[in-house]
Amino acid sequence: ILTEGGLSAFSIEAVARRAGAGKPTIYRWWPSKAALLLDVYHRQKGETFYPDTGATRGDLIAFLEALLGFWKTSGGEVFRSIVAEAQSDPAALEALRDYAVTRCRASGVILERGVARGEIRGTLDIPLIMELFSSFCWQRLLTGRLDPSRDQITHLVDAVLTGFATERDGAQ
Amino acid sequence: ILTEGGLSAFSIEAVARRAGAGKPTIYRWWPSKAALLLDVYHRQKGETFYPDTGATRGDLIAFLEALLGFWKTSGGEVFRSIVAEAQSDPAALEALRDYAVTRCRASGVILERGVARGEIRGTLDIPLIMELFSSFCWQRLLTGRLDPSRDQITHLVDAVLTGFATERDGAQ
Repeated sequence: ILTEGGLSAFSIEAVARRAGAGKPTIYRWWPSKAALLLDVYHRQKGETFYPDTGATRGDLIAFLEALLGFWKTSGGEVFRSIVAEAQSDPAALEALRDYAVTRCRASGVILERGVARGEIRGTLDIPLIMELFSSFCWQRLLTGRLDPSRDQITHLVDAVLTGFATERDGAQ
Repeated sequence: ILTEGGLSAFSIEAVARRAGAGKPTIYRWWPSKAALLLDVYHRQKGETFYPDTGATRGDLIAFLEALLGFWKTSGGEVFRSIVAEAQSDPAALEALRDYAVTRCRASGVILERGVARGEIRGTLDIPLIMELFSSFCWQRLLTGRLDPSRDQITHLVDAVLTGFATERDGAQ
């Protein structure tokens, strides 16, 4: 339905009709249109966002480039429309919140691998830190600036990984 | 107009009427409704977001708490509606992009003070790093989670300031 008619054609009603099911059946599985749309969006995304490059630095750079790249080519339009809808529709907000929280936990695998390799401190609040990276991508998407250079992405990852205080423990 | 009728009452036409001016006069100063709204929003915000606590750590914590706090009490509704509008209106997107870029430069004063004090490395891309912090607040606003605890904010600032790689230069 999305491919044929775009976002404006996508509704619980259209999905139920196409599936030969009643709307209640659809609602049994997805509580809102936004939840269903996020599920479709997530399936389009696939699972190629957390490649294991052997080092946290490379994994984080690959993650940021994959997410920004996916949003540049296709998924960005769907995702920004969901974010927009969530600002006036409470059900969409709830779906978006659940999705964001779930994604930050899932992408945490990058830092968990780093902890397992002894590269990353074990005391880190991993979902919170991954939220920082995904938020950067969100702001870039929502302001139409999906084009940070490879240098900027690398600078960001290095700055955060190793800190930018002049004395490592000076700020703690 | 905003105070009286809310966002839906706010338009270039209403502002021109109230000002006893023509719409072209308003457009001479603000290229779009979103640009004017962002200007009003920014004046409401005031300039209390970058207090000098004497240390970068304290300044960053104060900045995050001030921004999340402002969005919790009032400005959040206006700002999230502008973000939503920017996802379907190119003029609003341009206004939001300009605003975001300008704000990341302005909030950079926090890290510039740190560099001047010798607390922060001079090689840092300051607006890029401030974007990371503001993005975190954006995602929290846009997912209705403006309630990170003081501990979470402190953890975030400490993690980023001092890095979380186990060996400081291991990741560079």
